Amino acid sequence: MSANHPADATTQPHSVVRSGATENDELPSNWGRWGEDDELGTLNLITDAVRERAAWEVRTGRSVSLAVPIQPASVSSGPFAPRTAEVSPVQLMMAYTGSPAPATADVMVVTNHHTLSTHLDALSHIVLDGQVYPGRPVNESVTMGGVVHGSTAAFAAGITTRGVLLDLAFDGPVAEDHAVGSADLDAAERRQGVRLESGDALVVRFGWVATRYRGNPMPGMSIDAVRWMHDRGVSVYAGDLADAYPPLPDGPSAMHRVALPRLGMPLIDAVDADELAAVCAELGRYSFLFVAAPPRIHGMTGVPVNPIAIF
Amino acid sequence: MSANHPADATTQPHSVVRSGATENDELPSNWGRWGEDDELGTLNLITDAVRERAAWEVRTGRSVSLAVPIQPASVSSGPFAPRTAEVSPVQLMMAYTGSPAPATADVMVVTNHHTLSTHLDALSHIVLDGQVYPGRPVNESVTMGGVVHGSTAAFAAGITTRGVLLDLAFDGPVAEDHAVGSADLDAAERRQGVRLESGDALVVRFGWVATRYRGNPMPGMSIDAVRWMHDRGVSVYAGDLADAYPPLPDGPSAMHRVALPRLGMPLIDAVDADELAAVCAELGRYSFLFVAAPPRIHGMTGVPVNPIAIF
Amino acid sequence: MSANHPADATTQPHSVVRSGATENDELPSNWGRWGEDDELGTLNLITDAVRERAAWEVRTGRSVSLAVPIQPASVSSGPFAPRTAEVSPVQLMMAYTGSPAPATADVMVVTNHHTLSTHLDALSHIVLDGQVYPGRPVNESVTMGGVVHGSTAAFAAGITTRGVLLDLAFDGPVAEDHAVGSADLDAAERRQGVRLESGDALVVRFGWVATRYRGNPMPGMSIDAVRWMHDRGVSVYAGDLADAYPPLPDGPSAMHRVALPRLGMPLIDAVDADELAAVCAELGRYSFLFVAAPPRIHGMTGVPVNPIAIF
Amino acid sequence: MSANHPADATTQPHSVVRSGATENDELPSNWGRWGEDDELGTLNLITDAVRERAAWEVRTGRSVSLAVPIQPASVSSGPFAPRTAEVSPVQLMMAYTGSPAPATADVMVVTNHHTLSTHLDALSHIVLDGQVYPGRPVNESVTMGGVVHGSTAAFAAGITTRGVLLDLAFDGPVAEDHAVGSADLDAAERRQGVRLESGDALVVRFGWVATRYRGNPMPGMSIDAVRWMHDRGVSVYAGDLADAYPPLPDGPSAMHRVALPRLGMPLIDAVDADELAAVCAELGRYSFLFVAAPPRIHGMTGVPVNPIAIF
Repeated sequence: MSANHPADATTQPHSVVRSGATENDELPSNWGRWGEDDELGTLNLITDAVRERAAWEVRTGRSVSLAVPIQPASVSSGPFAPRTAEVSPVQLMMAYTGSPAPATADVMVVTNHHTLSTHLDALSHIVLDGQVYPGRPVNESVTMGGVVHGSTAAFAAGITTRGVLLDLAFDGPVAEDHAVGSADLDAAERRQGVRLESGDALVVRFGWVATRYRGNPMPGMSIDAVRWMHDRGVSVYAGDLADAYPPLPDGPSAMHRVALPRLGMPLIDAVDADELAAVCAELGRYSFLFVAAPPRIHGMTGVPVNPIAIF
Repeated sequence: MSANHPADATTQPHSVVRSGATENDELPSNWGRWGEDDELGTLNLITDAVRERAAWEVRTGRSVSLAVPIQPASVSSGPFAPRTAEVSPVQLMMAYTGSPAPATADVMVVTNHHTLSTHLDALSHIVLDGQVYPGRPVNESVTMGGVVHGSTAAFAAGITTRGVLLDLAFDGPVAEDHAVGSADLDAAERRQGVRLESGDALVVRFGWVATRYRGNPMPGMSIDAVRWMHDRGVSVYAGDLADAYPPLPDGPSAMHRVALPRLGMPLIDAVDADELAAVCAELGRYSFLFVAAPPRIHGMTGVPVNPIAIF
Repeated sequence: MSANHPADATTQPHSVVRSGATENDELPSNWGRWGEDDELGTLNLITDAVRERAAWEVRTGRSVSLAVPIQPASVSSGPFAPRTAEVSPVQLMMAYTGSPAPATADVMVVTNHHTLSTHLDALSHIVLDGQVYPGRPVNESVTMGGVVHGSTAAFAAGITTRGVLLDLAFDGPVAEDHAVGSADLDAAERRQGVRLESGDALVVRFGWVATRYRGNPMPGMSIDAVRWMHDRGVSVYAGDLADAYPPLPDGPSAMHRVALPRLGMPLIDAVDADELAAVCAELGRYSFLFVAAPPRIHGMTGVPVNPIAIF
Repeated sequence: MSANHPADATTQPHSVVRSGATENDELPSNWGRWGEDDELGTLNLITDAVRERAAWEVRTGRSVSLAVPIQPASVSSGPFAPRTAEVSPVQLMMAYTGSPAPATADVMVVTNHHTLSTHLDALSHIVLDGQVYPGRPVNESVTMGGVVHGSTAAFAAGITTRGVLLDLAFDGPVAEDHAVGSADLDAAERRQGVRLESGDALVVRFGWVATRYRGNPMPGMSIDAVRWMHDRGVSVYAGDLADAYPPLPDGPSAMHRVALPRLGMPLIDAVDADELAAVCAELGRYSFLFVAAPPRIHGMTGVPVNPIAIF
């Protein structure tokens, strides 16, 4: 048995996995909790009762996008594609449809895991010692032709659940050297008068939308925070930041090397929660219906998404 | 002034546009209704009151996807991408991330207007005599570097409104030579006990998910049906079919050459409403919260989307 | 008959075409010279006798590349493609081949008509009033699926002929406002002691490799120079520059809107003739075997090429 | 020291490398022969004397392409790219350049290592136990952003040398279960009255152009044949076939896992030598000037090429 395979782990929170050589001991894990072939991970926590609780949140139909806008660059440059090729998660090409043109059409080249794109990570995205969640060999799960286990197929019907915003930036951006822990999350709940329940989507605002991902130091979640998410039963994480840079000294990157591959928690990277925070403050409530329905494209390790909060 | 430019049209429904040479007379149009620079078209009809009516539809949080699943093909073929290149709206390439791989990643090449992809057409998608909605020159609106007017930027915050399913296939697929008219839509409303209101999303089921788009004859909407949608105030159309093939003799293609470019009505092509119809029948109601939130990618003529109906 | 169609033109040099509205009168043309369906244009001038004359040039096997090096950018950016996306004619994706990797592989996205890429223009590349060489409607010749007439298929077996370098930059770069005319070309021949014969490839050095294509003013060929090429029987043109910027006042762009579409002369854009000029000066001769054998890819409007001069 | 690293090998032919676990003993190797950082491999054998010998071959300028034609498929499918997506090494997109179109342009997506594309393998293409020629770690040589050691940059100036055709199919295709050995190559030389010298390009015809690469059994080179090539000093190999399928029992694949990564011999896969064989038979000679000048694109693991034989 692989040192990483928690076959003897209980299927309850706080189960642990020992990884001898490369990762820290006693990290939380859901490997085995929903079976050896599970592809949903913590999305399993979104039960009918959770969805019904989410439905109660909808009162006015007001909706807010949590996605950053993407302005595509051109896939080509030169005289027939005159714009400078910029860094963009999406590159486009406008298609010839005849001359004169009866219609316009185009093709997009999408980099799924781009720091400037709000996107949903599939569970096969991270490899731990040759394995992906929940302990399957990467070479069986990911092929040259696409992902056959742990792909974006898990998001086929969209993610509809209750969402809770924890605004860590209520009085300014989180400091660049701060490791967010369970105490920060508990404090946010108390401050906002909300409590995250099992199956909820956790939306976190660090206040870093404008300044992140420039190679500069950034705060992030600690493993202590991931344990809190594991205890509470977070189904999906959406934040303007996730892991600290440089990495925290408490072990492997909390969100991308613990929460995603060990807990099986899909991550929505690079959200913009600023408008959401403003609306929550205005309405005096921090919970809402959360809908994340990316294009129904199977077989990928990630996909762009426009998560919507509906009040 | 261009023969197509309804500068003298009223800004009310039933305004008409005369197009001398190439299109039929007296077609409905919204050119000018919301200004010369409008990029929202019939999405302007989704008011706060419409959204609040939509909110009332949410009771249990049960949700249904209206998208067809897309299994990507490989962008490359040969020994390092062993699958046969199939026809798919999405082509993928799995990326080298090091050896051994610490993570998996990929790139998608997306054909936006693919008949096997559930996608949202932007208003610049169709050109009428060198113009796009609401009468702007195509060469000013669409550049080699992307769409600058009438692009997918109009969908930035998603489309959230009340949705109504009209199931034309309640007793079997619509006949291949049937031109759907206002009488069919009225009859569906009466049969289902529902009435489409201004600002609602119209979801139509022809019962053709499995058999469409093979080059075979298909039924579709008539211009009479488009007039009905114009009268009722449909904000967005989502159907498993839209225009007939071969084209109907009543004028230009009703949905793609009248509803989209003249009314400014975004179209969601290639939906799968089968599960939705089953759920509506089970629940005994044909209205729901409709959420269509494609990736927030600006500058395109279309984008894949996974529309969600929430009950 | 189209005003552009030289159906009544002789099939000899100095035949002219009248274009009423958009182009200058009395421009040289080969439309009809080699038939209505010709796809070779001036490559027809490369006869067996020309090739044999070319063979005599080969003495030591010393060879020189006329191509600029292309350093690809990454088609994607972000954490799994860490380099900044630069402007490059080629974008690459490194492919996942398994973990650990038994081989490495990749895909290239190539912009064929890029000013930083040495490339060969096919005869369908330029459209004159809806027509491509030799007077065929563009919509019959170029489809959404590729070029069916006048494509890179004309280069299938490579271009092998005698090449002659005319070094206009022997005493420094050509001045930015200079319109190169027949007198310049005649003078270069006399200075170098060489004479360009029918069927030869003409290589021209402006001395602008390092400074061109930055949006700055650049010198270029005049229509008078194109008439000279037409008289002499140039089969293919390869230069570090071709058309002036801003355009010269003597008519349409001489190389791209006269030589290519009217004479049917394939153009090799963006060559680097600096090393060639040095070798010619060292050897004291300005003629050589010229081999331009791009990948045998049909159906395109252009293709990257690495022209080789062999002495 | 890695078991694969021939640090103690002589730098002469017949040097051997021992690979304990994964490969056969005593395989020929050039690791170290031209230094630890060499990127040219057997192209080092093309000396001035070799090139001059090559020059003597050119008499009439008659030239023959050794490339198979590539008909691109469309990168997209659907109504705005109507052709069925076929398996092709090249996919194209025709670009919108305005309406009406003043020019036509396009982008190509090229799969470099495609069995239906005549292409040149760079030396970093094959990985042996984490190393590429001449013993460098793959993760230092190949990055997510491209190849930094052992790339197509080695072909920048083209390959110009003497070529020799050995036609193994003079009396019909090589039998599907035949392992080509040194005796076959010696016999071809005697039969044709030619002798391959150090630095020559070896062109081999199996007679399999029409029937290869369909998943069917195919003949190929044995390790004994590779030893012969090593002894003779082949600089580059070009064949309509290379390695047998299924693999021969004599060790790792002779061409792709011995000749390329151990000898540093660039391989031109998927050539068509049929016309060349006919011309050689007609002219009664089997040597010629060989020019392989692919686009000057650096940083790739392979590139399409149109090799030309000139008589």
